[in-house]
Amino acid sequence: MFYHVKELQYHAKPSQPDPVYAKKLQEILGGQYGEMSVMMQYLFQGWNCRAENKYRDMILDIATEEIAHVEMIATMIAQLLDGAPAHDQEQGAQDPAVEAVLSGMNPQHAIVNGLGAQPNDSVGFPWTARYTIASGNLLADFRANLNAESQGRLQVCRLYEMTTDPGVRDMLSFLIARDTMHQNQWMAAIEELEQTQGAVVPSTFNQEYEKQEVSYSFMNFSAGEDSSRGRWASGPSLDGQANFEYIPNPQAMGQNPQLKPGPEYIHGTPPLDMRVMQNVEKMEPNHQPYIQ
Amino acid sequence: MFYHVKELQYHAKPSQPDPVYAKKLQEILGGQYGEMSVMMQYLFQGWNCRAENKYRDMILDIATEEIAHVEMIATMIAQLLDGAPAHDQEQGAQDPAVEAVLSGMNPQHAIVNGLGAQPNDSVGFPWTARYTIASGNLLADFRANLNAESQGRLQVCRLYEMTTDPGVRDMLSFLIARDTMHQNQWMAAIEELEQTQGAVVPSTFNQEYEKQEVSYSFMNFSAGEDSSRGRWASGPSLDGQANFEYIPNPQAMGQNPQLKPGPEYIHGTPPLDMRVMQNVEKMEPNHQPYIQ
Amino acid sequence: MFYHVKELQYHAKPSQPDPVYAKKLQEILGGQYGEMSVMMQYLFQGWNCRAENKYRDMILDIATEEIAHVEMIATMIAQLLDGAPAHDQEQGAQDPAVEAVLSGMNPQHAIVNGLGAQPNDSVGFPWTARYTIASGNLLADFRANLNAESQGRLQVCRLYEMTTDPGVRDMLSFLIARDTMHQNQWMAAIEELEQTQGAVVPSTFNQEYEKQEVSYSFMNFSAGEDSSRGRWASGPSLDGQANFEYIPNPQAMGQNPQLKPGPEYIHGTPPLDMRVMQNVEKMEPNHQPYIQ
Amino acid sequence: MFYHVKELQYHAKPSQPDPVYAKKLQEILGGQYGEMSVMMQYLFQGWNCRAENKYRDMILDIATEEIAHVEMIATMIAQLLDGAPAHDQEQGAQDPAVEAVLSGMNPQHAIVNGLGAQPNDSVGFPWTARYTIASGNLLADFRANLNAESQGRLQVCRLYEMTTDPGVRDMLSFLIARDTMHQNQWMAAIEELEQTQGAVVPSTFNQEYEKQEVSYSFMNFSAGEDSSRGRWASGPSLDGQANFEYIPNPQAMGQNPQLKPGPEYIHGTPPLDMRVMQNVEKMEPNHQPYIQ
Amino acid sequence: MFYHVKELQYHAKPSQPDPVYAKKLQEILGGQYGEMSVMMQYLFQGWNCRAENKYRDMILDIATEEIAHVEMIATMIAQLLDGAPAHDQEQGAQDPAVEAVLSGMNPQHAIVNGLGAQPNDSVGFPWTARYTIASGNLLADFRANLNAESQGRLQVCRLYEMTTDPGVRDMLSFLIARDTMHQNQWMAAIEELEQTQGAVVPSTFNQEYEKQEVSYSFMNFSAGEDSSRGRWASGPSLDGQANFEYIPNPQAMGQNPQLKPGPEYIHGTPPLDMRVMQNVEKMEPNHQPYIQ
Amino acid sequence: MFYHVKELQYHAKPSQPDPVYAKKLQEILGGQYGEMSVMMQYLFQGWNCRAENKYRDMILDIATEEIAHVEMIATMIAQLLDGAPAHDQEQGAQDPAVEAVLSGMNPQHAIVNGLGAQPNDSVGFPWTARYTIASGNLLADFRANLNAESQGRLQVCRLYEMTTDPGVRDMLSFLIARDTMHQNQWMAAIEELEQTQGAVVPSTFNQEYEKQEVSYSFMNFSAGEDSSRGRWASGPSLDGQANFEYIPNPQAMGQNPQLKPGPEYIHGTPPLDMRVMQNVEKMEPNHQPYIQ
Repeated sequence: MFYHVKELQYHAKPSQPDPVYAKKLQEILGGQYGEMSVMMQYLFQGWNCRAENKYRDMILDIATEEIAHVEMIATMIAQLLDGAPAHDQEQGAQDPAVEAVLSGMNPQHAIVNGLGAQPNDSVGFPWTARYTIASGNLLADFRANLNAESQGRLQVCRLYEMTTDPGVRDMLSFLIARDTMHQNQWMAAIEELEQTQGAVVPSTFNQEYEKQEVSYSFMNFSAGEDSSRGRWASGPSLDGQANFEYIPNPQAMGQNPQLKPGPEYIHGTPPLDMRVMQNVEKMEPNHQPYIQ
Repeated sequence: MFYHVKELQYHAKPSQPDPVYAKKLQEILGGQYGEMSVMMQYLFQGWNCRAENKYRDMILDIATEEIAHVEMIATMIAQLLDGAPAHDQEQGAQDPAVEAVLSGMNPQHAIVNGLGAQPNDSVGFPWTARYTIASGNLLADFRANLNAESQGRLQVCRLYEMTTDPGVRDMLSFLIARDTMHQNQWMAAIEELEQTQGAVVPSTFNQEYEKQEVSYSFMNFSAGEDSSRGRWASGPSLDGQANFEYIPNPQAMGQNPQLKPGPEYIHGTPPLDMRVMQNVEKMEPNHQPYIQ
Repeated sequence: MFYHVKELQYHAKPSQPDPVYAKKLQEILGGQYGEMSVMMQYLFQGWNCRAENKYRDMILDIATEEIAHVEMIATMIAQLLDGAPAHDQEQGAQDPAVEAVLSGMNPQHAIVNGLGAQPNDSVGFPWTARYTIASGNLLADFRANLNAESQGRLQVCRLYEMTTDPGVRDMLSFLIARDTMHQNQWMAAIEELEQTQGAVVPSTFNQEYEKQEVSYSFMNFSAGEDSSRGRWASGPSLDGQANFEYIPNPQAMGQNPQLKPGPEYIHGTPPLDMRVMQNVEKMEPNHQPYIQ
Repeated sequence: MFYHVKELQYHAKPSQPDPVYAKKLQEILGGQYGEMSVMMQYLFQGWNCRAENKYRDMILDIATEEIAHVEMIATMIAQLLDGAPAHDQEQGAQDPAVEAVLSGMNPQHAIVNGLGAQPNDSVGFPWTARYTIASGNLLADFRANLNAESQGRLQVCRLYEMTTDPGVRDMLSFLIARDTMHQNQWMAAIEELEQTQGAVVPSTFNQEYEKQEVSYSFMNFSAGEDSSRGRWASGPSLDGQANFEYIPNPQAMGQNPQLKPGPEYIHGTPPLDMRVMQNVEKMEPNHQPYIQ
Repeated sequence: MFYHVKELQYHAKPSQPDPVYAKKLQEILGGQYGEMSVMMQYLFQGWNCRAENKYRDMILDIATEEIAHVEMIATMIAQLLDGAPAHDQEQGAQDPAVEAVLSGMNPQHAIVNGLGAQPNDSVGFPWTARYTIASGNLLADFRANLNAESQGRLQVCRLYEMTTDPGVRDMLSFLIARDTMHQNQWMAAIEELEQTQGAVVPSTFNQEYEKQEVSYSFMNFSAGEDSSRGRWASGPSLDGQANFEYIPNPQAMGQNPQLKPGPEYIHGTPPLDMRVMQNVEKMEPNHQPYIQ
Repeated sequence: MFYHVKELQYHAKPSQPDPVYAKKLQEILGGQYGEMSVMMQYLFQGWNCRAENKYRDMILDIATEEIAHVEMIATMIAQLLDGAPAHDQEQGAQDPAVEAVLSGMNPQHAIVNGLGAQPNDSVGFPWTARYTIASGNLLADFRANLNAESQGRLQVCRLYEMTTDPGVRDMLSFLIARDTMHQNQWMAAIEELEQTQGAVVPSTFNQEYEKQEVSYSFMNFSAGEDSSRGRWASGPSLDGQANFEYIPNPQAMGQNPQLKPGPEYIHGTPPLDMRVMQNVEKMEPNHQPYIQ
C-alpha cells in the first residue's frame, strides 16, 4: 500500500514558461526510457519477486522513488506550459517569436491536456506497457534496469544541454545524480548475483544441452575482419568457461528449406498442376468447401 | 549491402507438426526480446555507429547473423503448422485431441497467414519498432544488448522445456548456444569500454553539474529496512568514485506545488469566483472567444 | 512524494492456483478500464490540477489508493500462476485437465514473465497511455472518472461470476465495494461542480457563438421513429436552458464538396486532360521536379 | 444498412488554406475524443444493443449523424491543405512565413496523404479501436458517451479559439451546438435509466456480496486533510443508500505478500541455497530439461 | 451525410450460438483486412478525392456499402455469443465440451463487451487507422483496394471452411460474392486509369530524373538462379517502356559509409583519444554543459 | 543465411546536413510504405512460400535488396543529422534560421538516437509488424506488393520535390528507378499467376457456393448516379465470367436484428420489467452471483 506527501522529492520550478521545451521534456516522462517506464518496471518486478525479501524490498524502494520522479517532471511540464499562446496562425506568422513557440509546441498540450503534462513521449507517442520487463529472473531484469538507467541518464544529460533555465537545470541535476546512484545500484546487485550463480542467464540451464560447438565463437558475417580486433574475438570468455574463437568465414549448417503445399481448405497458392487457363470458359473450381 | 544463401544457418526441422507450439514459438520471433528485435536493434546501432570501425563491423556481423535466426524460426513455425486442422467447433468438441489443437492455436496462423509464420509474439501482438534502441552511446547500447540476450536466452530455455520434439530442441540448442556467446560478447565489449571511459553513462557529463549530495545514496522509501542488507547499501560504489550511503527515512526536499489557473481560452475548470448558480436563469458566459 | 508499506490494502490470496483465471484477471489490471488506467488517470489529473487544493488533494488520495489496487491484483495473479504446468502438447492431449489449463493460459505468463503478472489486459494487449484523460477541465474529467469506475465495477462483477475461489471472491468483493464508493464520490464531485458552473462542458464558452438552432434538436437519421419515445426527444433539456425538439427528417444543410486538383509536385491523380494513352510510345512526362 | 447523400450535414468551407491549422484540426477527427471515436462507439453500442428498441434506434441515429461529422471535418482538412507548400528547407529559411508553415505542418499530409485528411490525431497518432467502449450495460456506456461529448466539446471550443477563419469557425459553431445537444441527450438517457435501476453500475449485483464496510468510505491516503472539504466526504451518498464516511488514516488490511519460488523449469532466480560460486571451476547446472 | 435503415443488407443469423467461432469471425470485422478497414479506407479516399466526380461517387458508394458489412458481421457475432457460458475453470475441466468453449473464447467478449462484437481482430488486437491508405493518387489507391479485397475474400473463404453452420455460411456466401464484385470493380477502375496515364505510379514523375540504368533490372541477390525463370526476368516490361534484364551478380555501387563523431553535447560514445583509464583516480570529465 | 558487404548498394551522401529533411525522410524508412515494410513483407513471404522454388527465390532476392535500401536511407539520415543544433529555445528565437531547424526537427533524433536514424515514420510513429502481409496466397500477396511499390514510389517522388540537395536527389533517383522495376516485376508476376489460375482471389473457392446473384452488381448507395459512368458499371467483368450490372436503388435484403437480453451473470442492461424505482427504499438486487 502507498501513502502520498504533498511536497515533491526535489524542487521542480522553472524560471519561466517554455512550452517548446515542455514538449521535449515529455521524453523522460513518458518515453521508452522515461520515468514512467522505470516506475512500472520496478513495481512489477517487485510485486512478482519470488526471491529473498531484501530484493523485493530494494526493488520496491526504488520503484516508489520513481513515482516521485514522474510527479516532479509532470509538475515541471505543467508550469513550463503556463500561459502558452493560442493565437491563430496568421498572427503567429507576423510575430516570429510567437510563431517559433506555436510551431514547436505539442498541439495536444493545449487541445487535449489544457496545459498539463501527458503520459506520452516527445513526439506524442503514448507510453506503452511493452516498455516494461519483469521476467522472474532477477539477473536478467537487473541488466534491463542497468540499461534503463543508462539510457535514462543519457537522455536527461542531453536535455540538460538543451536549456539554460536555472530552475529546470536544478531539477535535472537531481535526476542525473539519482541516475548515477541507480546505475551503481544495479551494477552492485548484478555483481552480487553473478558471484553466486555465474554470468550467463539463466544459470540453471544445463549447458550440456546447448550446442556447445558454437557457444564461444564470434562469426564474421561480412567482408573484412575489423571485427577481429576486439576483446570479444579472442582470450577467455567473460563467464570463465572457455576461450573466444573467431570464425572468419562462417558457413551455413542447415537445410535448404522446402515447405509442403498447404491443404486445400487454406486456399493458398494452388500447386502448378492445379492451375489452368481460365480466360475463355467458365472456371472449374477444384475445391469444395471442407465440410458440408 | 546484403547477400542471401538458401541454406539455413542451422537445421530447423520439427519431427512433426505442432500448431499449438507454433503459437508459443512466435514469442522468440516477434516478441519484445525475439530475434526480430535484436536483428533490428543491431542493424540500426551499426548503421548509426559513429565510433571506430571495429565496433561498426562487429555490430553488423551479429546483426547479419540475427537475420538468419529470424529465418530459422520462421521456417520452423511454417513447418510446425503443416496441415493444421480447420474443422468446425462442433467436430472439435467431439474429438478432444483435435479440440485441444484448435483451442490452443493462434487463429491468425490459419486465417491471415495461411499456415505461415507472422512477425508477432505469442499472443499475436505485432512487433513494434519501439522495442529497439540505438542511442549513439555504445556503452549504453551494449547494456541494452546484454539485457536483450539475457531475456532472449531465458525465453528460449523456457520454450525448450515446453517441448520434447527432438528437431525443435535441436534448433533451440543452437540458439541457446549462440545466446551464450552473445551474452559473453556484449560483456566483453562493455568491459573494454568501461575500462577506458568509466562505468557511468554518459561518462562525458561533468559530475560537478549533478546534485552530488544524492549521487550515491540508497533511499529507503518503505517501512522496514530489508533493503539495507545488499551490496547496494554500503561499501564502495561500483564506479569507484564514492561509498554507498543508506538513508533510512528520506524526506521531501521540494515544494508543495501550486499551479496557476490556466488562461481563459483554454476553458479549464473556471476559478471558484467565476462559477455561479445557473439552474434558473440563462447562463451568462464569462468568456468571449479569444480573437474575433 | 510517496511511501510504501509492505502490507496490501486488503487480502489477496487465492485458495489455489488457477492459471486460466489469472489470464482473465489481467483485464482489470492492465485493461482499458483496469486499475492501471484509473491509477494513471488520477495521478495525472492530480498533478495537472489548476483548481482549488481540495480537488487536487482528493484526486491524489484516490490515485494513491489505486496504486494499491494494482498491487493487490498483481499479487493475486502471481499466486494464481504458482506452479503452472509447462508440459508439452503431446502430454497435454493425453490429460484433458492439463490440456484445459495449457490451452487457456496466456503463454507469456510462463515464457515472458516467469509466472508473474504483466501490465497487459486479458488478451495480452499492453496497457497504453491513450487510456488516460486529464483535460484540465475537472467537470469533463470527473465524468471520465465516473465512466471508468462504472465500467470497472461492471468488469469486476463479471469476473466475480467466473470463479468460485473464496480467496479470489474475497478480494473482488473489496474492489467492488471500493468501486461503489468511487462511483458515488465522482457523482458527488460532479454535482458540486454542476451546481456552480452549469451542466454543459465547458461552461465558459459563450453559447451565443454556437449554432443555437441545433443546440437542442434530436435528429432522426433512420427510417422509423422509435427514437422519439425517450426523455431525450421532448421536455426540458437537462441543462435547463431549452426544450428538446425532435426532427423526424433532418436535411443536409451543407455544400456538395468539390475539391480542387492538387498541385503538380504532389503527384496526385492527374486531371483528365493530362492523362494520355501511353502504351505504344515513350511516355512524355508532364512534370519536371519542383525546384531544380 | 446505410445510404449517402452528397451534401454535407453543414457547411465546411474555410476562407483560405491553413495547413498548420489542418494539423491541429486532426485532433477532433482521429483523436481519442474525435468524431471517429464517437461514430465507432455509437455504432458498436447500437449493433450490440440488447435492450428495448428505442435505445437501439436512438443510439444508431446519433451514430449515423457522427459519420456525417467525420465527413465534414475530413472535407474541411482537405481544403485547408489546398496548395500547401513543398519547398525545400533552404528556401523556407529565407522566407519566414513559408518556414512557419513548413515547420508547423504534419509532413504526412503531403508525403502520405497527398493533401488529404488522415484518420489520425493532431500529433499523427493513428485512431485505435481501444478508444471505443460498448459494454452491454447502457448506463455504463451512456456515462462513457457523456464523457466523450464533454471532452469533445471542450476540444472543439479550444480549436475555435485557435483560428479566426470565419468559415472554420462557422463549422465549429455547428459542432459545438451539436455537442451541447449530445451532452443533454446522454444526461437525459442517464436520468431515465438511473430512475428505474439505481445509480451504481451494475445495479444487478447483490450488494450483500460486496465488502460493505468500505462501500461509502473516503480514504485519505496523504498527509493533510484538504480532501475532507468536499461533498464526497460527508452527507448522504449519491445512490441514496448510506452516508459518506471520512477515514483520515486508512490502514493496510491485507497480508505482507510472500511468493513461493517458481518451479525449476521456469528458470527464475534460483533460491539462495542453489546459487554457488562458479568463477573457478566448471558450472554444475542443477537442472535437467523438464521432460526428456 | 448518411441515413440508416434498420434492416441489414443481407441476412445475418446463425443457426445456433458458437462463441469460439465468434472470436475467429472478428478477423474480418476488425482485422487488417476486415470490413472496418475497407470501410474507413474508402470513406477517406472518397472524402479526399480531387479527381472527377464519378470516382468520388463510386468510391463513396462502395464505402457506404462497407458500413453495412461491418453491421452484418457485428450483428452475427453478437448472436454467436448468445448465452456464452461463464462457468469457473473447475467446472469446465469436468465438462470437456464446456471447457472447449471456455478455452477457445475471447475473454473480453464476456468481460469487456458483455456478449457483443468488438472492433478488434481474431487475437483481440484493436483496429488501427494505420490499416488505411488514402494517398491522393487513385491508381496507387485502387491497387491498395484490389489487394484489400483479395486478402479479404481469401480470409472469408477460410472462415467459410471453418464452420458448417448454414446461417453463418449463408452470410459469408454473400460477402464472398460481394468481394468477387469488388475485386472486379477495382480491376476495372485500374484498367481505366492505366490506359490513360500509364502503369507506373506516379505517372507524372519525369523518368529522366530516375536512375534509368537500373529501372528494368532484376538483381539476383542470392546464390543460385531459380529467380531467372519467371516473367519478371526477361521480355518486355509491363509498362511497355523497355525489356527486363537479369543481373546474376549485382555489385555494390555506393560508398563504405564513415560517420563523423557527434558533437560533444550529444554525449555519444567519446572518440578513442578522449577515453582514459579511470579506475583509480577521480574522473576528469571532458565536457562542460553546452550553454551556461 | 545472409552476408554483409560494407559498401552500400548505391551512394547515400548528402551535400550538407539538413535535420529537418531527415525527419521527413523517415517516412520512407519506417513508415507504412517505407523500406522496412517491404523488407519485412518480402522476407516473410519468402520464408513462408509453399509454391515453386522460382517464386521463393525471386521473393527473397528482392527482400535481400530491400535490406540494403533500409541501410542506404538510415545512413543518409545519420549524415543529414550531422551537427544538428541543440541550442535552447531562447537563443533559437533570436536566430530564425536556427529556430526553423529546431522547430522542424524530430526531437527524438537528438534526445533518443543521438543523431542517428530511427525505425519510425515522419511523425515519429514506430514501425509496426501490422504493416506486413504474407497470406500464403501469392496472387493476393503480389497485389499487396504492387500496392506497396506504388505507394512507395509515390512517396519517394514527393520527397524528391521537397529537396534540392544533389546528393539526396541522387540517392532518391536510384530508389525511384528500383521502384519502377519493382512495380513492373510484381505486374509481371501477377500476370503470370492470373493467366494460369484466374483473376479472382482465391481461385480455388467454388463460385457455386457464393451468392452469385450479387457477384457482378455495382450497388449505388447514394443519391445521384455519377458512379454509373465508369468501366465498373457495365460491360464484361474483368475476370471474364459475367457482365457488370448497375443497381440504382439497392434494397435491404436482411432482417431487422433483434438481440436477446444477455444472461444475468453478464450484468448487461436489465430488461425493463426488472428495473424498479430505487430512490427511496433499499435496493432489492435481483441477482445472486452465478455459482456459490
